[in-house]
Order: sequence, then C-alpha cells, then structure tokens
Amino acid sequence: MDFAPSSRAVDLASRVQTFLDEEIRPVEADHHQRVRETRESGGDAWQPLPVIAELQAKAREQGLWNLWLPHSSHVPEAKEYAERFGTDGGDGLTNTDYAGIAEVTGRSFLAPHVFNCNAPDTGNMEVLLRYGSDEQKKTWLEPLLDGRIRSAFAMTEPGVASSDATNMAATAVVDEDTVVIDGRKWWSTGVGHPDCQIMVFMGHSGDPEADRHHQHTMVLVPRDTPGVKVERMLTTMGMYDEPYGHGEVSFTDVRVPVENVLVGPGEAFAIAQGRLGPGRVHHCMRLVGLAEEALDLACRRGTERKAFGKPLVNLGGNRERIAEARIAIEQARLLVLKTAWLLDTGGPLAALSEVSQIKVAVPAMAQQVVDMAMQLHGGGGLSDDFPLAAMWTTARALRLADGPDEVHRGVVARLELGKHGMSR
Amino acid sequence: MDFAPSSRAVDLASRVQTFLDEEIRPVEADHHQRVRETRESGGDAWQPLPVIAELQAKAREQGLWNLWLPHSSHVPEAKEYAERFGTDGGDGLTNTDYAGIAEVTGRSFLAPHVFNCNAPDTGNMEVLLRYGSDEQKKTWLEPLLDGRIRSAFAMTEPGVASSDATNMAATAVVDEDTVVIDGRKWWSTGVGHPDCQIMVFMGHSGDPEADRHHQHTMVLVPRDTPGVKVERMLTTMGMYDEPYGHGEVSFTDVRVPVENVLVGPGEAFAIAQGRLGPGRVHHCMRLVGLAEEALDLACRRGTERKAFGKPLVNLGGNRERIAEARIAIEQARLLVLKTAWLLDTGGPLAALSEVSQIKVAVPAMAQQVVDMAMQLHGGGGLSDDFPLAAMWTTARALRLADGPDEVHRGVVARLELGKHGMSR
Amino acid sequence: MDFAPSSRAVDLASRVQTFLDEEIRPVEADHHQRVRETRESGGDAWQPLPVIAELQAKAREQGLWNLWLPHSSHVPEAKEYAERFGTDGGDGLTNTDYAGIAEVTGRSFLAPHVFNCNAPDTGNMEVLLRYGSDEQKKTWLEPLLDGRIRSAFAMTEPGVASSDATNMAATAVVDEDTVVIDGRKWWSTGVGHPDCQIMVFMGHSGDPEADRHHQHTMVLVPRDTPGVKVERMLTTMGMYDEPYGHGEVSFTDVRVPVENVLVGPGEAFAIAQGRLGPGRVHHCMRLVGLAEEALDLACRRGTERKAFGKPLVNLGGNRERIAEARIAIEQARLLVLKTAWLLDTGGPLAALSEVSQIKVAVPAMAQQVVDMAMQLHGGGGLSDDFPLAAMWTTARALRLADGPDEVHRGVVARLELGKHGMSR
Amino acid sequence: MDFAPSSRAVDLASRVQTFLDEEIRPVEADHHQRVRETRESGGDAWQPLPVIAELQAKAREQGLWNLWLPHSSHVPEAKEYAERFGTDGGDGLTNTDYAGIAEVTGRSFLAPHVFNCNAPDTGNMEVLLRYGSDEQKKTWLEPLLDGRIRSAFAMTEPGVASSDATNMAATAVVDEDTVVIDGRKWWSTGVGHPDCQIMVFMGHSGDPEADRHHQHTMVLVPRDTPGVKVERMLTTMGMYDEPYGHGEVSFTDVRVPVENVLVGPGEAFAIAQGRLGPGRVHHCMRLVGLAEEALDLACRRGTERKAFGKPLVNLGGNRERIAEARIAIEQARLLVLKTAWLLDTGGPLAALSEVSQIKVAVPAMAQQVVDMAMQLHGGGGLSDDFPLAAMWTTARALRLADGPDEVHRGVVARLELGKHGMSR
Repeated sequence: MDFAPSSRAVDLASRVQTFLDEEIRPVEADHHQRVRETRESGGDAWQPLPVIAELQAKAREQGLWNLWLPHSSHVPEAKEYAERFGTDGGDGLTNTDYAGIAEVTGRSFLAPHVFNCNAPDTGNMEVLLRYGSDEQKKTWLEPLLDGRIRSAFAMTEPGVASSDATNMAATAVVDEDTVVIDGRKWWSTGVGHPDCQIMVFMGHSGDPEADRHHQHTMVLVPRDTPGVKVERMLTTMGMYDEPYGHGEVSFTDVRVPVENVLVGPGEAFAIAQGRLGPGRVHHCMRLVGLAEEALDLACRRGTERKAFGKPLVNLGGNRERIAEARIAIEQARLLVLKTAWLLDTGGPLAALSEVSQIKVAVPAMAQQVVDMAMQLHGGGGLSDDFPLAAMWTTARALRLADGPDEVHRGVVARLELGKHGMSR
Repeated sequence: MDFAPSSRAVDLASRVQTFLDEEIRPVEADHHQRVRETRESGGDAWQPLPVIAELQAKAREQGLWNLWLPHSSHVPEAKEYAERFGTDGGDGLTNTDYAGIAEVTGRSFLAPHVFNCNAPDTGNMEVLLRYGSDEQKKTWLEPLLDGRIRSAFAMTEPGVASSDATNMAATAVVDEDTVVIDGRKWWSTGVGHPDCQIMVFMGHSGDPEADRHHQHTMVLVPRDTPGVKVERMLTTMGMYDEPYGHGEVSFTDVRVPVENVLVGPGEAFAIAQGRLGPGRVHHCMRLVGLAEEALDLACRRGTERKAFGKPLVNLGGNRERIAEARIAIEQARLLVLKTAWLLDTGGPLAALSEVSQIKVAVPAMAQQVVDMAMQLHGGGGLSDDFPLAAMWTTARALRLADGPDEVHRGVVARLELGKHGMSR
Repeated sequence: MDFAPSSRAVDLASRVQTFLDEEIRPVEADHHQRVRETRESGGDAWQPLPVIAELQAKAREQGLWNLWLPHSSHVPEAKEYAERFGTDGGDGLTNTDYAGIAEVTGRSFLAPHVFNCNAPDTGNMEVLLRYGSDEQKKTWLEPLLDGRIRSAFAMTEPGVASSDATNMAATAVVDEDTVVIDGRKWWSTGVGHPDCQIMVFMGHSGDPEADRHHQHTMVLVPRDTPGVKVERMLTTMGMYDEPYGHGEVSFTDVRVPVENVLVGPGEAFAIAQGRLGPGRVHHCMRLVGLAEEALDLACRRGTERKAFGKPLVNLGGNRERIAEARIAIEQARLLVLKTAWLLDTGGPLAALSEVSQIKVAVPAMAQQVVDMAMQLHGGGGLSDDFPLAAMWTTARALRLADGPDEVHRGVVARLELGKHGMSR
Repeated sequence: MDFAPSSRAVDLASRVQTFLDEEIRPVEADHHQRVRETRESGGDAWQPLPVIAELQAKAREQGLWNLWLPHSSHVPEAKEYAERFGTDGGDGLTNTDYAGIAEVTGRSFLAPHVFNCNAPDTGNMEVLLRYGSDEQKKTWLEPLLDGRIRSAFAMTEPGVASSDATNMAATAVVDEDTVVIDGRKWWSTGVGHPDCQIMVFMGHSGDPEADRHHQHTMVLVPRDTPGVKVERMLTTMGMYDEPYGHGEVSFTDVRVPVENVLVGPGEAFAIAQGRLGPGRVHHCMRLVGLAEEALDLACRRGTERKAFGKPLVNLGGNRERIAEARIAIEQARLLVLKTAWLLDTGGPLAALSEVSQIKVAVPAMAQQVVDMAMQLHGGGGLSDDFPLAAMWTTARALRLADGPDEVHRGVVARLELGKHGMSR
C-alpha cells in the first residue's frame, strides 16, 4: 500500500496549487459575483465569462490540462491523447497520482473547469476513450479534450427511482441502421452549457429477453438532434450551477445512426459501471480538498473573530470540533487514497467495496465539516459572502448523485457478508 | 403541566388547518413558481403577488388574523387590539394555545404571512405592544396589525460576532431631542418588502459608564429616513426569501426624534430579551410543523416509489429512519409545549433554560428530518420540485438566527451548573 | 395533555425522595461494598443483606409500598390490594402519577426493591392482578405484594432470536388436567433471588392450527417443581445483579396443574403485551431518574475537579455536553409523561407507538448521559467508586431487554406508515 | 506514504494469525471460564493459569516473541535484545511493520500476553530500552524480555485530574543517594500480577523552581520495597482484568537508591511522552483488530440467526450498520498506519497530531462497532458467552486511559490552529 505520489505528480500538484493561488483565487469572487448579477438581472448567466477561457488557455499552456487522463499503463491510448492535448509529461496519471491534484482543484469551484477536469465531461471523455470507436473518438473525444465542446450524461429519470437502474423507462431501440430514442431524463448535468454538443444517453434496448444486465444501450446523441428538448434547468438548493447546470430533457422520436451506439446494443451496464467508478473517486478526491478549504475558513474565522473577549475557537466546544474535523478529513483522505491505489494495482473489481465506501464516507464528512465552518461564520456562513453555502450543496448533492448513500451501503454490506458466505 | 389547548385554540387550529388545505395549498406551488420565474427573468420578485393580499383578506374575514397576539392575562392591552384587528374571539392566545396553531402554519411558507403571524413582524409588533408609547403604537403598531405596512429588525452586524451583543459597534446617541444613528447592520429581515416602513434599530448609546446591560438603546427608524441605505439583500443558501428578505443596511448620520426611542436610552437589552424569547418559541413551534410536513413527504414518497421491487421505505434502514424522525419530532414538540406552558404560568424568567433548550433542539431536529426526507426523494429532494430545499434552509438558518446553538447551549449549561453552586 | 401529577402523587414523590435521601443513600455504598466483598470472597452474594428487609419494613410503614399498583379506575381490584398491602392513600396510582415517583426510585439501585416496585416482580404481579384467577391471586399475588416471596419471568430463549416471539421453541402443552412444560429459557430475571418461588412461563401450546397470535400459553410454574433447573446465572457486562440476577433455566418434563394456566391456553400473546407495556414504561420512568443522577454526578465532578487551572466543566466542550444532556433528559421525560398520560386516558392501544418510542429513545438517552458523566470522572467513572458503570449497564441492557431498539423502531414505523395507507 | 509491511512482517503476521487460530482460539473460552469460576468461588484468580506459560513457551520457540521491539534503525540496541530474546529475524520491527501484527493480537485477550507484547509491560520495557542505564537494563529489562517478571506503571492519581500532569501530588525527592517517594497512585496497571516485581513511578521532584516540564522525576521502584502497598484492585465495568489488573497503590516513605532514577531528576515528562506515544499507537493497532473481530461476530450472528423469516442482517437497518462498521474500521486502520509510518519516517515529533487523532478516533470507532455487534447478539451480547462485553470495556476504557478524548482533541486543535498562527 504505497500512497506516495510520483515526483511528477508532486510537481503537478504544486503547480496546480500555484495556479490556483495566483491565477484563480484573485478572480474567483469577482467571477461569482458577476454571474450572480447577470442571473439576477435576468441576463444569460449560462454564457461562461471570458475569464474562464483565458484561464483555460493559461492552464493549457502550462500543461495543466486534462490531468484526469488515465495513465497509459491502464489505458494505452491515453498517452497519445495526453501528448496531443497538452498534459505536461505526455501521459495520463495513475489514480494515486491524480488524487492530490484533484484534491487541490476541489478547493475552488472554478478550478476543475479551468483544468478541463470537471464532471461530467471527464466521465464522458473517459467513456469515449475506453469504449469509443475511432470515429466516435475523432468526432467527440478530440474536441472535448480540446475544450472546444462540452457534453452531458443522460441516465437518471424523473419518473422512477433511478437508484435501481432496471427501473429505467426511456428506450434506445435499434431499428436497422438507426437508433430510436424516447423518454425523459433529468439531472443531465452539463446540458446547460452553450457549448454542450453531445449527450451520452442510456435507455432500454427494447429486448426483454436479454438478461437484466444486458437490456440497456448507451448511445451518443448530438445535442441538436431533432426531438431533443431541454424542458427546464433544475436547481440544487436553489442553485443552477451555471454554466453547466442540470437539465430535465425530453427525447421524442429522436433518431441517430447506429454507429452512435457505444460498444454495442445491451452493453450500457458495463459501460456505466466503468464510467461511474472513476467519476465517484474523482468526486471524493475533490471533496477532500473542499473539506480542507472549509476547515481553513473555519480556523481563520475562529481565530480572527472575537466574542466574550476570546477568539471564537476558544469558546465552548469549538476547538474540539476543529479537531474532529481534522480527524475526519485525514481518515477520509486515506480511504480515498487506498481506493485509488486499489484501482491502480487491482483494477475496478478490486475496489468495488472501497469505491462505495468512499462514496458514503466522503460526502458525509465534507458536509459535516462545512456545517461546522458555517456555524463559526454565523449568518455569513449561509450567505454568498463565503463559498460555504455552495460547498454544502455540493457535498449534500453528492450523497445522492452517482447513487444514494443507502445503495452504496448496500454494496459494502453485500461484499462484507459475502465473506461470511452470504450470497445476497 | 397541562399542555392541552383550550377549546377555542382547538377550534382555531382546526380552522387554520382547513384554510391551509383549502385556500393556501391549491395556490402555493403556482405562487412559488411565479416568484421564481419573475426573479429569473430579472423582474421584481420583491413585489408580493396579489394572491397574498387576497388570502390575507379571506383569513382576516374568518378571524384568522394576528393569532400571535398574547392573551390579555399576560398583556392586558392585547385584548383591545385583538378585538380591533380581527382575531376571532377578541383576545390573544396563551403560548400553550398558540403552539398548535403556529405548528400548522409552519407547514407552509405562505401561511405565516397570510395570517399576519410572520417573523419579524410579530416580534416587532410585540415590542411595540409591550414597550411602545401610545403614540408609537398608534403610528406603527396599528398599521402593522392591519397588515398595511411591514417592519424590519436591525440588530446583527457584519463586522463583529453578534452572538456577543456587547460587541455591537453601531451607535444610537441621544443628542437633545434627536437620536443620531450610525453603523451597519445585516440580516435585517423584512427590509426587502416594498411595504416595509419601519425598522427597530439597536445601537450603543455612547455612554461607556453605564453597566454593560444598559449601554444600548432601541429606536424606531422609519425606512425612508435620510441616511438609511439598503446596501444589498443577502441570500441564505442562495435564496432571497422574497418578499421579506434579509438586508445589509447602512445608517449614516441618520436622525430621528427622541420620541422614537423605545422605553428609554440604555433599555435595549431588556427589550431585546423580551423580543427574542417569544420569537424563538414561535420559530420552534413552526419548525415542529415543518418537520411533520417533511415526514409526511418522506412517508408519501417512500410508500409510492419503488426500487428493487419494493417500496423505498422497505429498503435498508429507511423504516428505522422514519421511526427515528417520529420519535425526534414528538420529543421536540413536547419540549416546545413545556416551554410555552412555563412562559404562560411563570413568565420569561421561569423558562430561560427551556427557551434555549428548544432553540438548540428543534432546528437541529427539523434539519435532520428534512435531510432524511431529501434522501428519500433522490435528486428531486434538492430541487425546487419539493419544498424540502427551502425547509432545510429554514431549519439550518435557525441554528444561527436569534443566537447560534453554541450560545444557547452555554445558557443551558450555566443554569444547570448554577444548581450546583457555580456562578458562571 | 395534562401531565401534572395529583397532589397525592406529589406528596408521595416527595416522601419517596426524602426516604431515598435519609434512609437509602446513607447505607447504599456500604451495601454494594459488602455484596461485592461477599461475591469476591466466594460467599453467597445472592442472599439479600438484612438492611434491605429493614428498609422495606420502614418504607411499608410509611405507606411507600407497592406504589406501582394501577389506579382503581383502570383496574378496579387494585384498590383492595392497595388498601390491604400498604399503599398510602389506599389506591393505586395512574401512570401519570406514578411517573415522578418511579423517576425518583430510578436514582438508586436499591430503591425499587425497597418500595416493592422492582422488575420483574411488578410485571408479574400486574399479570396476576389483571389476568389471575382468584385462586392464583390468593396463592401468588398476595405474598408478592407482601414482599414475602419473589418471582421470575421466563420468556426469552437462548437458541432463537426472541425478538420474534413466534420463534419460541419451548412448549407448554395441556394434557387433560396437567400442563407439560419443556424447553430452555434465559434472561429469566429474578430467578437468582432465594425467595423466588414462582415463575411466569410462556411456551408454545402445541397447536399449530391456531392463528399465530394464539399459539402460546402462559402458565405459573412454582420454582421448586421437579424438572425446573437453573443451569447458570448470566452476567450483563460482568455483573450478576444480585440478589435478583438473570438465569438460564431448563424445563424438563415439568408438570403443573391446568389451573396454573393464565386466562387459558393460547392466550399468552395478549397477556405478554399487557405485561410488557407497563414494564417498558416503568423502566423508562426510572431511566429518566438514572440519567438525572448521572447528570448530577457530572456537574458535581465537573465543578469540583480542576485541570489546567479551571474546573473541568470549563474545559473544551464540557459545558456544551452538560447542556446537551439536560436537553436530552427533558425531551425524554416529556415523552415518557405523554406515554403515561395516553395509557391513562386511552389505554394501551392508544399508546402503542409511544411505548415503542420511549423504549427506543430513553435507554439511548440514558446511556449517552452516563457516557458523558463517565468521561468527566476519568478512570473513576469506570470503576466501582461511582455508580456510573452499573448505570451504563442498566441503560445498555434496556436497549435489548423487552425488545431490541430495532424491533421497536419497526413498530413505530409501521404505525407511522399506516397513516399513509401502508398495511405493513 | 508507503504503508506496505515488509515481507518479514507479512510472514510474521501470518504466523501470528496461525498461532492465534491453532493454539490460542481452542483454549481461550476454557481459560476465561476457569478464571471466572476461580474468581467466583473466592479463589485466587490473579494466578495465571499454566496454559499461559505453555503458550508463551511455544510462541517463543517460534520466534513470535517481543515482536513489539523497535527496529534497530530507531533504537540501535533493539537488535541485540531481539537476538537474545527470541524475536524471529533478530531485530525489532518498524511501527509500520508491527501494525498488522498487533492488529492480529488485538483479536484475542490472551494473545498480547502470549507473545510478550502486552501493556503495560511493553511500555515499561521501551522506557528501559530507551532511557535505562546498563545496570537498569540488566536488572529489569532482561527478565521482562524473558517473560520472567512483570511490571507496572504508576502515574495517574486518584485525588486530582490526572489529564493535567502538572496536577500530580505524589513526590519523588532525591535526598543525597536516596530517592524518597510518597503519594498515592491508581490505575497502576499490571500491579495485580503475581510476577510484578518492578514499578515505574512518576512524582514531583520537590523543586518548584524548575520549569513546569522539568519538575517531575521517574524512578524504578521494586514492588517489594517497604512502604509500597497495593490498597485495592480496581474494576473497569465490573472487570478486574486478571492477572494484570489495575491497582490503587500507596507509597509511604518509600526509599530506593538514586541509581533507580531514570535519566535524571526532572526528566520524567520527556520520558512519559516517549513512553505514551508508542503505547497509544499499539493500543490503537490492537483496537483495529478488536473491531474486526466484533464485525466478524456480527456478520456471523446476523447471517446465522433468523427472525421474522429472515436472517437478522436482512432486517431493518442492519445491513447499513454492517456497512458503516466496515467503513469506519477501514478509515481508522489507515489513520493508524499513517501514524505508524510518520513515526517511522519522521519520529515522534512528526506524528504528534496523528497520535492524538488515532487516540480519539480508534477507541470510539471500536466502541461503536462493538455496540452494533452486541445489539445483533441480543442479550447474549452483554453476557460472558461472547467476548463483546470485554471488548466494549476495553474500547471504552481507552477513551480515558493514556489521556481522555477531550485532551487529545485539544492537542489536535492546538496543532491545527498553530498552522493559522495561533500560539495556544
């Protein structure tokens, strides 16, 4: 169990930190403020501010670009794309190496986008990288890696409990050389971005005879295909998360060529598992950084503000709460690192339980640390003056996104009880 | 310890429930939707929709108006105002009697306003009722009771830890027949309402010689006095709580006549205690209703939705969580009732510990129940499709508003340890 | 909802408190010390020390005897027994009235026995009072009320999960005028007492045709019936709870006359429900007292001991924990009172959910308060120098005794979901 | 951060596991049963049963002896002792290497003794190894390593809050060539063992001028020195922990030669820190094993027992609780490993916060996991039929031993806030 990052990863993490401190921090508050003002004045807050593209250009210039790309020892093609699309060092990174870098990007809401490392694009790019045909890669993966276009993922449905994927009602039926797509999806993250040009859609193949893990098909649906309609953008705790956002999207007799199917009809489950695993781990890596940021804020506020003649941290149980936050973060980070290391050394099947473990533990930890920091900030902690409200929403939403806590606890329990001979 | 409401209170609670079901529920979702649309299109979401005034008129007609007014056995003048301003039965209610009614209004975000029972107006009206001069009552209390104007409360400050009131930096200095007011307040709830015409302001009297509980003055400041400027409206978890809202307000050489002082210079602490006590209890009463509403939503969703072939409630620990929510709500409600009963039978000094106890216990309970309900709703629970996100924000904010949990725990501990001879 | 005790109950509670302070407290530590020494020297610690009988005589003289007897408005015969067996006032008490008295007795491990109000005897007496034939009452109830004999309850079995009573493997089969009893029970509380002469036994009737709630029979088994063998006494957290104790008892071809059956064959479930309800409530009433005692100990230690130049309570989060304990106790007590009041005014069916609610909430609360007090006592808190270790064990055991938390949460959830139309 | 054990450590851990399974498990229940019977019949339960010496001989033969010895890269002399006193491989182990071995020994209450790796002897041996003179090593360390004698540690005092070491009232005053020792200690673990021949005593040096971290002296006091009296043995949750036990010991004008002082007068603080660090880490390593054992028991019981027609684990929230236990154990283990690795690579000063972090996190985790397992075992979980009651007591006691949670949280907070420029 060697969690130490390579020297290349240490260097990259340090440069990402420097970029964060010197390039992103100075413009961050202003960016959020302007988006808010645009939104509140009825303007189009979905249009990214020019500063984002400027930061992206700078980041790319420094090779701080597509750092999420897997190492070629895991996905051989990754090397080529890392070389062509700007990742310094010309190869992707192992999960262990990426952990510390992703953690730094989790301290800022702009950072993941700036480095082209944000959900859901990374997940969609990973799907294309691992499962895409040459044509699909050329058409969609390359412009995504280039940052020219954005993507969305359409899996969750409003009408059913999507934690049970077999509930899925939308369809993607192959009819000769065409795939006919119908249904309604929501929480299609990324669909709000003006550059969103491609959606990864999952639906029932229409073949009820297939075994239950081969009844679904994943297909690439260009955003402008007739019949695709974004019905509305959803809020999480009142926030739209512009410019990506979460859409409710209807698909009515949408037709795309059969070449748009990923891998083949009925193969969606395997792809989804492959997509969600790294996605969950990346979320957790960033949440560790988010929690560190919240603890920093708590310590700063708690030492600077005074009440009853003492710094806030010296009142009541505040110091003990600071300590509990530190203890919780350390444990969560180590479990993320262990998961990353297992993925690197044993692949996804070796880390099934751990991926679910961190998906339960890390968002809950982050939510708790942010809650503590809010409390130390008084009313300000709930306002837009601090990033805490947005941080809380991020952590809370991740107790549901990519599978609710309860489902992941079920996975962990199943694997645990399996050691004692229990089959289900 | 008799927590039973009078038959009049039972009748009123039942009529409030009927009004809620028949008049408010049918228009509620549409109201929120229209406010949201107005806000998002850059319109003026602060202007209350006409439906509010219509509902208020209906409520008043039925005597469901100003139900928060204290019973005349506690505040003799209350009877006169109850008669004149429409409360059915022509008198106010005891705290015990009001508890069940307030709980019903806590199930809806519109209800408190519809019945003229909403914070901060009730708190400000109570201040005027108890401490106002005849002139102050005539000028401000009567139009407030009438629902013609709205009010705000300006106590918390952005620059200091306001949980320690002696930190207060704003000033209200009497200079002959004028009070000169300077400083900056935030979380001045209600200041966003277009009908807000009066602010209750608290500031340092400028007399450092006075003992520490007699250094502050409370004064009525008409909203349109020169030098009063709403710098911005604050969000809580991204929400503005239109049409009331929470403002950051600057006061620059604001001058009002000395007749606007409440009770007298240096008397603010006593008034603030008198104001905050009932305010905290009312918040807690409503939060019990809010939690009941969340539990209802959880049960409904959990029985209607299915995953893995079972209703959601029958999966994992969901039933146990439903039970824990019920147990927590019951305990919280009873502690609120005990507090109300103590206030009724022994006055504020008899309930010092209990007011702080419920202020700690009830928002935390409500937050927890709402969190559980969210989890059962999946992504929908975080969206605007359900009131859960707004409920969560309400409960969370009340762990800070009117004193953070930590301060109230300190009060409870001090009184507890006092029984063991410890003076501080 | 009137939780106020009658003036008679107030008087009794005050006299019980005085008796506790003046008669029991002075001898308690010495009593425990002597039992411990006897046990450790290999002597017979099961023989009650003479001081118990002396205290019982004094308590009875003062009418502080059999205070658990139900009021005649609930069980008409109670009045006669209260008159004959020494309860001051010549009648039993309502649940609401008994609550405050039981709470006082919960502050001491000797008190319940001294007042003839201890489990399992009160439960067994209540069974005889409510369901016993005249002959059964004369033979067993009267000497129990007199304190001349003791009893045990034999329901839980070692070989099966007894939380599901239909798992029960022991049998009580009527064979003409004899009941033949076979099986093995454990956690038969009271069986260790040298005066234990009667056991209330529950077993399967041998009739598999009967509906599942009429397959079990309850029967009185004299302790000295051939075939009854106490295999061993069990410990809870290393403690034997002398002189009552918890036995594992085998029944081998035990034969008693059919007249010993309670009510009739197949009626055990109804009786068990009737028995366990009040038993659970009494346990909870006493646990509230136990928690108050622990909080008292915590406050005393925390104010008297110093570290780092301050009383312990002023270090870290200790004051907040004292406050949390107070808040938790208040809520738990009120829920117990509500349950008592519901039982008084609506009977057992009106309080089904609440009985399970307190059975979940109160032991957990008590365990938590005791844990906090232990922590403030350092190593001493775990030793025999303070009653905290025994208190903890009592509270912890009651999360399992009379139904584990999980089963009671299930009951609460079932009743809650029933309101939403869910049948199971 | 490489937590991987060396191949030697992997081999040792596997052999310790085999020894546990094949040699200890088969005799463990019988051992405990016989000690219990001896104790209960008034016999001398402090005399270790012969089986212990037999197991020790076998373990030593296999080189599974003194595995706690530090690696020679940390303490050069360790190698010599490892060679002479039977540790296979002829050297001690790094903390990282020892972690997995200690974890295995934590699964059994006999194992640490069998491998000569038990507290407090390892702590005392480590003190002698690091700080002892040649003479002290020869006289005391060698027979301890040989398993011929046992030792005790006398630091905590009954009359003061010992969490603040400056409270210490006992004295160890150098008077020419003699040290005069007076005072009273308790929780002197190990003093009950019949082979206990040496005590490590800490007392005030009598020099109030010295700075506060140089006022105390550590001195070796042979158990049979006149004036040393074991006043009584203490229980934790009713258990004596024979044959080691925890004593209350009085020291009355006890005189030992000045050569018995460790390092020098006034040096006790530094030694205590050096002693407590590894001691805390070893406790935590074992607690991880204890928690694994409890989870194993829970899974076994939960899959084998049925209620309501299902295995217990499939009822209510049991599976989610199994998952939470797994998640908590994983995180705790990783934090222990990180601490061990920090100690190995950076020394004690590099791990100050982490040692306190695990001291807070690990016992609490273990207590929680055991509590869950108890609940799944019903009444049996509290009895002597399972090791859970003893496990719980171990975990609970370790929330106090070697510093209460609150003090360690204080350390973590101080170091955290130090990063933000706060000095205290």
